[in-house]
Amino acid sequence: MQETKKLAQTVKVNPQDNVAIALYDLEAGVRTTENVVTLEKIPQAHKVALKDLHVGDEIIRYGVLLGYANRKIKEGSWINEEMVTLPKMPSLEQMDYDRDYQVALPVAKQGTFAGYENPRGGFAGTRNILAIHTTVQCVSGVLNVAVKKMKQELLPKYPHVDDIVPINHAYGCGVAINAKEAKVPIRSLRNLVHNPNFGGEVMVVALGCEKLTPEMLLEEEDNKSENVIVLQDLPGFEAMIQALMAMAESKLERLNARRRTVLPLDQLCIGMQCGGSDAFSGISANPAAGYAADLLVGAGATVMFSEVTEVRDGVQYLAKRCQSSEVRDKLIGEMAWYDRYLEQGEVDRSANPTPGNKKGGLSNIVEKAMGSIAKSGTAPIAEVLSPGERPRSKGLIYAATPASDIVCGPSQLASGITLQVFMTGRGTPYGLAAAPVIKVCSRNEMKDLWADLIDVNAGAVATGGSTIAEMGGLLFDKIIRVASGEEQSFAEKYQLHNDFCIFNPAPIT
Amino acid sequence: MQETKKLAQTVKVNPQDNVAIALYDLEAGVRTTENVVTLEKIPQAHKVALKDLHVGDEIIRYGVLLGYANRKIKEGSWINEEMVTLPKMPSLEQMDYDRDYQVALPVAKQGTFAGYENPRGGFAGTRNILAIHTTVQCVSGVLNVAVKKMKQELLPKYPHVDDIVPINHAYGCGVAINAKEAKVPIRSLRNLVHNPNFGGEVMVVALGCEKLTPEMLLEEEDNKSENVIVLQDLPGFEAMIQALMAMAESKLERLNARRRTVLPLDQLCIGMQCGGSDAFSGISANPAAGYAADLLVGAGATVMFSEVTEVRDGVQYLAKRCQSSEVRDKLIGEMAWYDRYLEQGEVDRSANPTPGNKKGGLSNIVEKAMGSIAKSGTAPIAEVLSPGERPRSKGLIYAATPASDIVCGPSQLASGITLQVFMTGRGTPYGLAAAPVIKVCSRNEMKDLWADLIDVNAGAVATGGSTIAEMGGLLFDKIIRVASGEEQSFAEKYQLHNDFCIFNPAPIT
Ligand SMILES: [Ca+2]
Ligand SMILES: [Ca+2]
Ligand SMILES: [Ca+2]
Ligand SMILES: [Ca+2]
Ligand SMILES: [Ca+2]
Repeated sequence: MQETKKLAQTVKVNPQDNVAIALYDLEAGVRTTENVVTLEKIPQAHKVALKDLHVGDEIIRYGVLLGYANRKIKEGSWINEEMVTLPKMPSLEQMDYDRDYQVALPVAKQGTFAGYENPRGGFAGTRNILAIHTTVQCVSGVLNVAVKKMKQELLPKYPHVDDIVPINHAYGCGVAINAKEAKVPIRSLRNLVHNPNFGGEVMVVALGCEKLTPEMLLEEEDNKSENVIVLQDLPGFEAMIQALMAMAESKLERLNARRRTVLPLDQLCIGMQCGGSDAFSGISANPAAGYAADLLVGAGATVMFSEVTEVRDGVQYLAKRCQSSEVRDKLIGEMAWYDRYLEQGEVDRSANPTPGNKKGGLSNIVEKAMGSIAKSGTAPIAEVLSPGERPRSKGLIYAATPASDIVCGPSQLASGITLQVFMTGRGTPYGLAAAPVIKVCSRNEMKDLWADLIDVNAGAVATGGSTIAEMGGLLFDKIIRVASGEEQSFAEKYQLHNDFCIFNPAPIT
Repeated sequence: MQETKKLAQTVKVNPQDNVAIALYDLEAGVRTTENVVTLEKIPQAHKVALKDLHVGDEIIRYGVLLGYANRKIKEGSWINEEMVTLPKMPSLEQMDYDRDYQVALPVAKQGTFAGYENPRGGFAGTRNILAIHTTVQCVSGVLNVAVKKMKQELLPKYPHVDDIVPINHAYGCGVAINAKEAKVPIRSLRNLVHNPNFGGEVMVVALGCEKLTPEMLLEEEDNKSENVIVLQDLPGFEAMIQALMAMAESKLERLNARRRTVLPLDQLCIGMQCGGSDAFSGISANPAAGYAADLLVGAGATVMFSEVTEVRDGVQYLAKRCQSSEVRDKLIGEMAWYDRYLEQGEVDRSANPTPGNKKGGLSNIVEKAMGSIAKSGTAPIAEVLSPGERPRSKGLIYAATPASDIVCGPSQLASGITLQVFMTGRGTPYGLAAAPVIKVCSRNEMKDLWADLIDVNAGAVATGGSTIAEMGGLLFDKIIRVASGEEQSFAEKYQLHNDFCIFNPAPIT
């Protein structure tokens, strides 16, 4: 059985499908696992027709409609994105949730992790980081010079602190701060201050004349002189560096006293996203991540998934899993908001997938959506968050964010994740400064190529060497070990940190 | 006379004005230079009424209408922003340019500078920098690690190279690349490659699956393997670092062979912008900058000024100075584009000025505009550029960009500036990695406070210690010395570098 699986040439995900996915580059004349002979070369991860298709015929994968054939396609042919007409986007008007949605989640073998208890309550940290927040990009030049000095002179004195991270961003001034949608970046930056990996310490660098004031960034009780440095109040550059060093040291002293303790998994909050997806992502990496999500949620943990444009075309399947009509309504509201946002820019969902996705075999946004949704597993959706909002519930949470990797990351950090699992098909060296990122690839070839960047290779799920449950279990174990500080991911080890690209849907001025 | 000037309490810019500006915090009962007695405390840089004003009366400064009194204001009273109703925005419909606009520009004492001749033709460099461009933010984590290593291990071996600068930005993927307005960020990044400070060398780091491909970023002849590293083609992190180091070294070798030569000023292209303005900006720093601009343009150099929302309310004065109806039409087109852009976000020009501007005495956008326009001097406008465009003309150029300091900077760099002069009232430690920034302050107090951040103090123009022409001449000399590498500005000395915040008016996905 194992043997046969390993020799598979193609994979058909759902019995209803009339296409299969090539597990390797296939030549013409190869007999697929479904007993169809290829008529031409089929690139790896691309679709092969399992029957003759006529113009207008439905193309089915994951048991759902990907689109319609816009030409005659012979059994055994390659189906590329140009042959598939996109179906109508699901209407947001009548989208029922399933009152009776129930699912038996798999049981994890472990119900605890070693985290940093949050002095402010709520989720625990997986790392112990001094974050230095900023109200405005203007201060970044000075802050970066200071952080370099802090890392050289202060950090080695405080061995229980993992890192010092400046939260530099492009928001704060030169923006329409009273625009309706300014609430998105402001909320994101406000909530980022409370990320559990920052241990409840607050340090903010302001300029003094910016639009985003410390009052707008901080809770009232945090907005005090021991937490906020205003550069315009200080006599020059050297004085700024001194003030920054002194405040950092006082925060480092307190952070350095923290220790990990064994905590129940309901104090863990992680995020999932994918980037550089291919057609394998929906077969191997994302379903394995979905299984790990089910294990985590079953054990009480909180798992966020995101990426509006990537779930939009499968949103009816998410709506069904919403725990209440309120949650469903918020989901629909977020989708409608993003529809309008794209419409205003005179673009639509065809802006996603990327050329790389298409090269990787993803014909369109429906195929990408079904693969993307797979990472949410099967649990009911307990809450839906607007971009950068903090949750009130535990369990599986849909945090509506752009699909852009570099924007989704900071958004989820603002919503409180302390670790991110990142699925990739084509590979990206993505990483976050504020939380470890575990990278999971969809194909063996990716792991072969990027041995020192990919943490977990889910490729064996596609080629038959592993089941989804086995791979999901391995990923769960990895998440617990990294969350507990027993291991670092490669992105963490090499300090691969992307910028804090904050989502600002409002104009700049 | 000098004595009297130094004792001035207030300044009236234009004989028609019915307000004066307080040069210091004035108590009630102080006799102003215009022989009016203050009725209450007037904060420094704020306006004092020089006559009784009734509801609906015009408030005049710079000889232009700032707005209408919305309450009774007694002679000697403080006029703050709440008392001034904004006039209607000048209509873009009928805006004549002056066919006969002529001006005698002042004559500079020097017509050359020592720059790096551009191997590709066009403007010369003021610095010799290895820029490493990126197609997408995904690669930034790896690139930053590599650049740190390059600066430690390679840069010391090439003493004639000033710096190695990674051009990290938030664009490239997760964006609506086919949106109408995507041309703005794409053009900006394309043109940034050609900034004269980068010496004609091209080095690009791509991922491999992003929307912004190397083909879109580079001219055809530059898009070759010796200039482009694609991370997805390389076997892992260590291999990426090796490839980046090797390519950087080959570029550094060539850059290191370059030397400064004496060049005519028509090979110099600088930018001007202001940030953290106050009411003094329009009296001292900006008029001095304007005089320096006149000296430069008179000597053949190119000077760009920008910041759409800040000139919008004085655009009729710029239209008059356009050199042809085509230039005027492009100016109007850029203003109309920005009006629509703000409207779409449901904001208007009241989004500018900032709270800091208001605290600094700037009542509204008209007052800010007149102060901002002062930095353009008096020369005719030879060309108007869309954001990130490269000029075809020399002389005074209006480069339409957002007013946001951190967005205007990279936009002007894309348009080819090799040095920026930055006027500030309230102070910002702003700097650019790709070009020296000379900071000019508007008030003596600012220089007293930030002695090691402000390069030129124009405060004496307001307090009577210096004329605009004297200060403009000093600034001209400073520009030539910094451009020629004889001096560093403070931002350059301390390496205060803001991020490359590229203007993207299109949606992200
Ligand atoms: Ca994704
Ligand atoms: Ca993503
Ligand atoms: Ca990290
Ligand atoms: Ca300005
Ligand atoms: Ca500005």
